[in-house]
Amino acid sequence: MRLCRYGEAGQERPGLIDAEGRIRALSDHLTDIDADAIGPDGLAKLAAIDPETLPLVEEPVRYGPPVTGTRQFVAVGLNYADHAAESNLPIPEEPVVFNKWVSCIQGPNDDVVVPTGSRKTDWEVELGVIIGTRAWRVSQENALSHVAGFCVVNDVSEREWQAERGATWDKGKGFPTFGPVGPWLVTTDEVGDPQALSMWLDVNGRRVQDGSTATMIFPVAELVAYISNFMTLLPGDIITTGTPPGVGLGQRPEPWYLKAGDEVVLGIAGLGEQRQTFVAETAA
Amino acid sequence: MRLCRYGEAGQERPGLIDAEGRIRALSDHLTDIDADAIGPDGLAKLAAIDPETLPLVEEPVRYGPPVTGTRQFVAVGLNYADHAAESNLPIPEEPVVFNKWVSCIQGPNDDVVVPTGSRKTDWEVELGVIIGTRAWRVSQENALSHVAGFCVVNDVSEREWQAERGATWDKGKGFPTFGPVGPWLVTTDEVGDPQALSMWLDVNGRRVQDGSTATMIFPVAELVAYISNFMTLLPGDIITTGTPPGVGLGQRPEPWYLKAGDEVVLGIAGLGEQRQTFVAETAA
Repeated sequence: MRLCRYGEAGQERPGLIDAEGRIRALSDHLTDIDADAIGPDGLAKLAAIDPETLPLVEEPVRYGPPVTGTRQFVAVGLNYADHAAESNLPIPEEPVVFNKWVSCIQGPNDDVVVPTGSRKTDWEVELGVIIGTRAWRVSQENALSHVAGFCVVNDVSEREWQAERGATWDKGKGFPTFGPVGPWLVTTDEVGDPQALSMWLDVNGRRVQDGSTATMIFPVAELVAYISNFMTLLPGDIITTGTPPGVGLGQRPEPWYLKAGDEVVLGIAGLGEQRQTFVAETAA
Repeated sequence: MRLCRYGEAGQERPGLIDAEGRIRALSDHLTDIDADAIGPDGLAKLAAIDPETLPLVEEPVRYGPPVTGTRQFVAVGLNYADHAAESNLPIPEEPVVFNKWVSCIQGPNDDVVVPTGSRKTDWEVELGVIIGTRAWRVSQENALSHVAGFCVVNDVSEREWQAERGATWDKGKGFPTFGPVGPWLVTTDEVGDPQALSMWLDVNGRRVQDGSTATMIFPVAELVAYISNFMTLLPGDIITTGTPPGVGLGQRPEPWYLKAGDEVVLGIAGLGEQRQTFVAETAA
């Protein structure tokens, strides 16, 4: 199943993508795609619905993030060996984990704001993992049973605040609009092997990232298990699992970064595409 | 005003502490102390109620965290010069910011679980700042107008996961039960100057922390303003503002840490006290 939330920000309604790629309205069956909806019972109920019985939604529509009420947005860094190399950082011995503030979450195609004064706003196409059931100290073998589905995430990053303002990466990862998620939550059964998904990102039509989840250092099941050893993962939480090479910081001969007017398009096989216009910040 | 939430975990009801220190039930006036309740309008409505008209609550009761629905639990590190020194870390040039996963939040007197295998579970009495209105790029002068009130936080920390497992502190700060908050949200008007509050923490009856918010490197207003430059603070968010000297890591001649059976009592002048029994982890 491919689930989505469509409509104006803050007023999204639940939808399902049918076999022809059209949006079908789920509002007669549930109020929103939330933590309850993506648990095993919730997904089983949705799977029992014949999509043909659902009203077609007139497009185009705005997509919101495909799940609402995310309480924890966990991020993994340097999870592709080539990306660690381009960042001039060693390959980690265990997962690097940081936080994206949940207030940065937005729809996949919403404008992204380049913070005033930022000289190093960067892109990162990533596989997002959406938790379906509470996970604390789960084994690697059981880890994927706690996952509801997958999505595309652009882990937008401000490198100066991430790395040059002391201590942790968290300052540079959660500016408003820095968390485009979606367009869809694609359930695990439909995705198949999460370690065999091609992924890519274009800046102004130029392909800069072209990778595959096959080259992750720590695969999804290992990440979920590892993270569940120091925090409780809750339904609706999102883990974004790191980016392959080709970010702005890794460009040669010189890094280059995003500025207002730039257009970023990214996608992961089977999980859909995102398209963001980067814009200047307006007064608070 | 001193607001609280009392009752079993997950079923807390809103309450108000009257002049005699007794709990008065607020359930006839609102369903919970949430983001709406602690905004300016919400607080004004509560302030208009004569406490004498509210039913007395029979005690003892369990206290929950004094606000529900916290979406972001922002933590500041090394914000007292003496604590930076005892941690063998330089005084930061700007605030050190990390994340406590919101799933760790619990009531002020609930048991704290020492994670299996942990050798370095530590305490930190801290002043918590509860946000009342959305804050993005606010000035230091306006910062406190975005604050609903203050509370006690024990920023429980697992030092090995914090500092010896790579990259960020976030792994060691958000284990389940590592975020006791409360007992009360005390509104800003009642607290007065947040930079003149004495604070203390006892382990098994021995005073180990004895400080004052007067010695913060970055005062509350500066922290709120600073943080609002890289993330949007939301109503109900909590900023925990760092700890004075005397944590386990800083004990001499040798650091010492918490184990199952230890009793920790902590408090801040005017904000109430917390009392936690540290217990062993049971199987997940």
